[in-house]
This record gives sequence, structure tokens and C-alpha cells, in this order.
Amino acid sequence: MAQTYIIGLDYGTESARGVLIDVETGTAVANHVHRYRHGVMTTALPNGGKLQADWALQHAPDYIEAGEALLTSLGRGRNISAIGLDFTASSPLPAKADGTPLSTLHPEEPHAYVKLWKHHAAQAWADRINAGSHDFLRRYGNRTSCEWLLAKAGEIADEAPAIWQEADRFIEAGDWLVWQLTGHEIRSKCQAGYKAHYQEVSAGDSFDGYPDNIVPGLADKLSPPEPIGRPAGGLSKRWRERTGIDGKAIIAVAVIDAHAVLPAVGATTAGTVVGALGTSACHLLLDDKLNYISGIDGAVFDGAVPGLWCYEAGQAAFGDMLAWFVRNFPQGSDEAASFAYYNQAAAILPLDAARPIALDWWNGCRTPISDPTLSGLLVGMTLRTSAVDIYNSLLESLCFGARQIIENFIAGGSAVDHVILTSGIAERNPLLMQMMSDILGQEVSVPNIAHATATGAAIHGAVAGGVVADFNAGARRFGSGSSKAYRPNTATTGVYEERYQLYRSLSSTSEITDAMHALSRYHALGK
Amino acid sequence: MAQTYIIGLDYGTESARGVLIDVETGTAVANHVHRYRHGVMTTALPNGGKLQADWALQHAPDYIEAGEALLTSLGRGRNISAIGLDFTASSPLPAKADGTPLSTLHPEEPHAYVKLWKHHAAQAWADRINAGSHDFLRRYGNRTSCEWLLAKAGEIADEAPAIWQEADRFIEAGDWLVWQLTGHEIRSKCQAGYKAHYQEVSAGDSFDGYPDNIVPGLADKLSPPEPIGRPAGGLSKRWRERTGIDGKAIIAVAVIDAHAVLPAVGATTAGTVVGALGTSACHLLLDDKLNYISGIDGAVFDGAVPGLWCYEAGQAAFGDMLAWFVRNFPQGSDEAASFAYYNQAAAILPLDAARPIALDWWNGCRTPISDPTLSGLLVGMTLRTSAVDIYNSLLESLCFGARQIIENFIAGGSAVDHVILTSGIAERNPLLMQMMSDILGQEVSVPNIAHATATGAAIHGAVAGGVVADFNAGARRFGSGSSKAYRPNTATTGVYEERYQLYRSLSSTSEITDAMHALSRYHALGK
Repeated sequence: MAQTYIIGLDYGTESARGVLIDVETGTAVANHVHRYRHGVMTTALPNGGKLQADWALQHAPDYIEAGEALLTSLGRGRNISAIGLDFTASSPLPAKADGTPLSTLHPEEPHAYVKLWKHHAAQAWADRINAGSHDFLRRYGNRTSCEWLLAKAGEIADEAPAIWQEADRFIEAGDWLVWQLTGHEIRSKCQAGYKAHYQEVSAGDSFDGYPDNIVPGLADKLSPPEPIGRPAGGLSKRWRERTGIDGKAIIAVAVIDAHAVLPAVGATTAGTVVGALGTSACHLLLDDKLNYISGIDGAVFDGAVPGLWCYEAGQAAFGDMLAWFVRNFPQGSDEAASFAYYNQAAAILPLDAARPIALDWWNGCRTPISDPTLSGLLVGMTLRTSAVDIYNSLLESLCFGARQIIENFIAGGSAVDHVILTSGIAERNPLLMQMMSDILGQEVSVPNIAHATATGAAIHGAVAGGVVADFNAGARRFGSGSSKAYRPNTATTGVYEERYQLYRSLSSTSEITDAMHALSRYHALGK
Repeated sequence: MAQTYIIGLDYGTESARGVLIDVETGTAVANHVHRYRHGVMTTALPNGGKLQADWALQHAPDYIEAGEALLTSLGRGRNISAIGLDFTASSPLPAKADGTPLSTLHPEEPHAYVKLWKHHAAQAWADRINAGSHDFLRRYGNRTSCEWLLAKAGEIADEAPAIWQEADRFIEAGDWLVWQLTGHEIRSKCQAGYKAHYQEVSAGDSFDGYPDNIVPGLADKLSPPEPIGRPAGGLSKRWRERTGIDGKAIIAVAVIDAHAVLPAVGATTAGTVVGALGTSACHLLLDDKLNYISGIDGAVFDGAVPGLWCYEAGQAAFGDMLAWFVRNFPQGSDEAASFAYYNQAAAILPLDAARPIALDWWNGCRTPISDPTLSGLLVGMTLRTSAVDIYNSLLESLCFGARQIIENFIAGGSAVDHVILTSGIAERNPLLMQMMSDILGQEVSVPNIAHATATGAAIHGAVAGGVVADFNAGARRFGSGSSKAYRPNTATTGVYEERYQLYRSLSSTSEITDAMHALSRYHALGK
């Protein structure tokens, strides 16, 4: 019997990564990375046309190029049972009814391109929608974000009506790529639920489908989504020829990159929180019931693990806040050396209750305050404070931010039994992980797994292709086999508890947030 | 006719400096520095006995050694008309009736030594006195400081009653040194007024002399002071033999080092503020009337310039806050290189209203809040913030702190016509001086003078010895001949005004000061 494989494709912000997994052994046997030709366009279009501040675009054909490179490299001549793919979101594009991206027809028009998740120029449209206090926002902490699909649709409709008119479809890039690979436009409840406010009637509310009458014409450019883990179709004949892939090659519906990680780290049951700690942090909680929790990004059913609600919250800055510090106050020849220096020095610092307290808002506060115009704070600086003290305070503030998010889930009525933290940061920074456990006051698991996100995407494929019975089985076969456990050092509890209460007090002090708002207004004016 | 000279001796924290000035030309012809043999004792006595945290002692014979070295080096074989000396304060010592320091009799007893100005272990006694709401504190913003004479007297009386019993005199080290040089115990209204709350009846109040019944037995160990600029006597025969000094060598009563600078920079008239910008900053305002101003250190008549009131306020951290930054975030091979880097980089930064705001409380807030347990704050940190931005914010916060002090003088009823800023920092940091002018909204003068403090001491000597008629004449003959003027750039006014209002708002936010108090308590507990 020929060996069979599954492939996971992880479409991130700068590049796409693919992993090839042996179905029999469950282990990854190859992986490959392909950077997008045009990267993230923040200042100019490919033809040189200038972009305004806060814009962030991508070029859809770059995804095709990356997909061809990855699938060819990993799959040529191999029997591929299934393929799953995850994608950044919300990163929508306007397209023709046959899938042609409008950017290929109007390369001079900024609004014709993929609006990457971190395109922030649609804030005014988000503000306008939020002012309406809509029923469809109840599951989303009562607000939509400028990063999401509705605000971006509104921006195009208002600013480029001809493009909006010409767009037959307005579609997440992940869903668009599934369409290109299979020939079928099958959207994902993950992307639709979290980013386009798609929802189905549940106990306690009556809202159904996509929100209507928010952006003129939008309803006609969408289509109902499928639960994650469902097959969108087989790899098309044309793609089989391009890549040399053999086998059934069933493609799963797309999943958002942050959410793809769940099965890879064994998170498939209610009561589990997974913190995906990247440049920013995404905290996902699985639950078997719907609560209306304020201060979260959203709660979606069938969007991350079938049959469960998944609540999303996040910290707008995480790894990038630490990278900011080690870059601006370098110790060593490069960023890695600087990180090593600070982590080693911080690890031997005694617990010091008098060390400065930080608010971790270097990139605003995503949840629970949902205010991108907030900024970072350090209080308690003295002539005795060292650079390492400050680094340590930043680490601590990231843990306080995570604790505030988890406490907010619990205050909203959800149970949290198990905390999993994952990413390169989680694996490389045991100091931070121990601090997380100490500050959360509970055990924290860090799974041993490389390329967790791409592996999670592959598990989506495996479920969709019938390689495994369900996500539980997929997690057991292909996910992390083991994890490192960090248990709270109770000697630190009292100190961290007092300091966390100071963090809470400072984070809710209006004179502080007023000052941050004033500085943010000056920044906006200065552009 | 033989050339005649005056000598100024500046007794600082770590060392004493002397300048020799030619009376005829008015110019300094030599200067010399002598470090104290035992420096500042913060951990151990000369015999190895351990000191507790917050202690800072000196050994009185070190002052004699330094005086002999300086007077010999500068004066041997020369015709010296007069000598003035300034000293740190309050730095009192217990002595026998013949001037013998008790530390020479009881070298094993910490309480027998000079308690240097920055000895902070007497806080409990200051708190106890302040709780009494005494009438004698009206001219002092209604509080005494743990750095001053009363608290230090109370500390000895309680903790070392035998030493207190044996002490015939409790005297500022500056007054004690004048006594040693002349053979006469003649104290200074400057030291007595600012540090021992000595005052004479004035319009609006009735308090007279030293405060009574605060520390048992203290009254018998003091003596009435003389106005500054008065002769305490001639250099004694024994000292003439030790140093080889010829001439009248009239010694002026002592003056506090910060206050000595006034005549050297031409500040002899009402309406002038002088900011002496050292590791900390002392801001002195001359006025012709007494106002009871809260949020100052004290107002003393005849204590800095004869016939005028001099109001004192200050910033607990100034140069040391900038030094803290360049040491902890170094750019270059040493501190000077690091300062040069940051000053050059900050000088070319555009004015940016969105840059972080700092509260300049790295060493607590001396005035107007008078709270040594406060600490520094930075708000508005983002991923775009650079190290140079932060340095710039620290510079700005020092200017905001100075503005708050000057506005407090004005709010209290005093007029401010002229601002003089002096010190090495003022001369070396034109960026900071321009920012001061911009933020104060008025012209700032930086006198061109080396060794301003020692020169000011020499002017005290010249007045006392009749070399010149008065301080005005002394300032003209021996003080700075010229100054550099910085005028406000009105283009910056709006931005700094808004940012200063944020500084004021943050500095009066109780949640912030509460957090600082909590961190400070933890620090005290951690010792």
C-alpha cells in the first residue's frame, strides 16, 4: 500500500508555510515556507501608486503563487489524502463571479486589492456601525472592528463605488483560495462568524444569517458558510496538473490562522483556553453554551471546533512589545542576542514587589477595553530601576493582560479548566510561561509541537477528507503528543495579587486613558 | 602694592572645591578640589560598624583636612583679604563646648557623626513633628523634612540619649567649620533659617527664634545666627600657621551651597528665580515680601541675599534622572558619549505632540507635593516610541516640573521677572535650556561662569571682609560677566501648553499616586 499524506497550509501575514504529514505515523516529514512576492503593501501599490497611512493591502495572485510552490514542493508525486488551509482574517477582496480578483483588472485602484487584517483605514465605518447599537453585535461584545469585513466593505462602497458595483463577490482571502483550489465557492463559518458577524439562531436570541442593510449591496456578494472540518471539494484537475499531486486531495473549508491551532494542541473540549502568543495574542475559549460576554471579540458556534462555541479575545501587542524593548534598548549584536540577554538577566531577578507596573497597551487594548487608541504605561520608575526591571515589568504586564481576559471569560459565565499557551514565544520563553502560571494561579501547558498552526490546518483537512473520524481523533493522531507543564509557585501569589490589583486600578483610571486619548489624537493630527 | 585675593570654599557632598580670585581683576586664577577621606558613609563606619538603610554620615575631621589642603594650595604666601564658604545642609553634628566632634570621642557610635543632608533615617521624627501642625512651619509649606535639623536632632535624642546628653552643641557642619577656622561659634541665618526653622517676627506672624519644645534639650545646643555676608572673624593664628596664608583673611558666616550661587550669577534683586540644576534642582526666588506659600521648602529673610526674602523649592531628581537614562540605556563607550548621543539625537527630533508624557519623580517629588515616596511615570508608549523619544520626554518632564514650581511661586503671590538657570547641565545642554524657555514661556538666562558656587562663596567673603560694599557690588566685580539668553519659540507654545496640562492632570491623579505609594511601601518592606 502506498504511503498517504495530508498537507496543512498556513497563510500568515508575510509568508505561507506548508507541512507534509505522514498519515500512518502522524508525524510531519517536510515543511516549506514561501514569502509573498508583494508582501504587505502599506505605502505603495505594485505600480507605484501611493497609499495613505493605516492602509495594508495584499495581492491575491501572490497566494496562488505561494500555494503552487508549497503544494508542488510537498506533494508532487505523492498520494495526498487531504489538504487543510488557514488564513489571516479578516482579509477580504472584491472579485468577479468567476473568482477573478478585481485588482488584476484594476491594478491602479487601491480598493480593488485584498484588505489585509491590519488595514486600519476603515475605522470611521466601524465607528458608524457601532453607533447603531445593532442586535447582531450582541455576541461580539457589542461592537465590530475596523479590521473586520463589514467596515472594510463599507469603506469600498463609499470610497470606490464603481469597484463595489463591479464586485460580484466580497470574500475572505482564505475562502477565495479554497474556491481557486476546488472550483467551488464554499465559505467558512469560522471566517464568516468571527469577521462578518454571520450567526445562526440560538437560545436567547433571534438573529440569523449575515447582518442585513448595513452596507448596501453586500448581501448579494456573500454566500452562506459551512462549518469548519467540512470538505469544500477535491483539488481541481488544473491544480493537480500544476502541482503533480496524486490522491483524493480533499480540501477542507478554510479556518482563521489563530483558530487553526486548537486541534494541533489538543484543544477540542469545553473549558479549554488556548492562548496563541504571537506578535499579538489571541485567546480562545471553548464552551458548550452561549453567554453574552462584554469585552470579547466574538463568540461563534461551529467556527473553531464542531459542536462547540468558541469565544475569542486578544491582546493587541504581545511579542512585538518585547521585540520593541530589545530593539530599542539592545544588549548584544542582534535581536536574538538581546532577547537572550534580557531573558537570562530577568530569570535571576528576585521577585520584587516594588518593581514598576506596566499597562501592556503599546498597540492599544484589544480586549476587554476594545480601544486601539490606548497606549502603554510604566509607573513606579526610580533611580534604582534597571533596564532588566523594566523588561520584567513588561513580561508581567503581558501576563496581567492575559489574566484579565481569562477573568472576563469567567465573569461572563464560562468555565476555564485548562490553559494552553502556544507559539514560538511560549516554547522559547520559560520565564514568561512560569510567570503566566504564577499570575493566572493555575497550571499552564505548553505543547511540544513545531508548526502548530499548519499542523492544525492539516487536521482540518484530515477531518474533511475522512482520514480521521473527528477533531478529537485528528488531535490525537496528528497533534502535539506531549506538553510542558508550568505550575504556580504559591510563594509569589501574594505579591502578584497585589500588583495585579494595581494593574486593574490603573487600567480603569480615566485620567490615564484621557491622557492616552489626547496623545493619540495628536498622533492622528500629526500624520 | 601687593596683589590681594579672596577665596571661596564650596563643600559639596563628595568633595570640597576652592577658588582663588584676584581682587583687582575679579577673575579666578586657581582652583583646587579635595575629596573627603571617608566620603559619604552609607553602609559602614570607619571602624567597620554597620549602618542601616537610609543612613548617610560624614566624618567632621575630613572637612578640616580638605580645608587645610585647599587653603594651603590656594593661599600659601598670598595676601588673602577674605574667605567665604558654603556647605551642604542640613548636615549637623553633635559637638562638645570646645568644638570637639563627638565622633572623635565615640567613633563606634553612628549617632555621633555628621548626619549628611541625604541621611533619610529620621523620617519618623519628621512625620511626628509634622503631625503637630506647628505655627513655626507656616513659612515652610507647613512641614519639616527628614533631611533637616529638627528631625535629625529628634532621632539622636531618642535613639542615642547618652550622645544627646553629652552634646553641648548641635551645629551645621558649615557653621562648625567657620567656628574651627575663626575660633568663634557664629552660625548662619541661611542654615538656621532653612534647616532649623529659625525665624524672626515679621508682618503677619508672631513666631520668633528657633522652635521650642520640639526636641528636648535642643535649645541649649543652638545659638542665634547672623545674617549672611557678615564677618564671623579672621582666620585664626593656628590656621594661618597651618596654611601659610597672609592678609586679613576675614571669614564670612557660612551659606548653604545652593544659595551661595545667587550673587555669582548676578541674582541680587526681587523677582529673580535661580534654578541650580544639579543631580537634583534647587529653585530660589528672591522677593521683598513674605507670602505663606504652600508647596515650597521654606522662605527665609536675610538667608541668601541681605534684606530680601528667599523662597526655596526644588526637584528631587534632575541631572540624576538623565544620568539614570543614559546609564541604563547606553549608547557609546561611557556616560559622556551616551549623553552626547542622546542630546544630538533629541535635538533633531521634530516637535511631536504624541510623544510619551513623563512625571519627573524618579526620586520622589520634593515640591510642590513634598512626597519622597512618589516615583516616575511614563504614559503614551507605543511600538513607534524610540529610546530618544523617551529621553526627550524626560527632558520635557524636568521642564514641566520647573514650570510647576515657578507657577506655584506666582500663585502664592510672588512676582517672577527673570529666570536664571545655572550649573554644568545648564551650560552643556542647550537643548534642555531651549525647552525650558519654550515651556516656561519666558526668556531664560544661563550665566557664563565656571565654579559658580565656590565663586558665590567667595563673594560672601568679599562682602564680609569689606572688599566690596555689598552683594550687588560683589556680583558685579566677581560674578558672571555675561550670560546666554534662550528665548521662547512661540511655535511650540500650543503643543507644550496641552502637554503641560496633561502633566498636571496626571500628577494630581490619586489612582497614580496610590499605586506609587503601594510600590514604595513594598520597597520599604523589602529592605
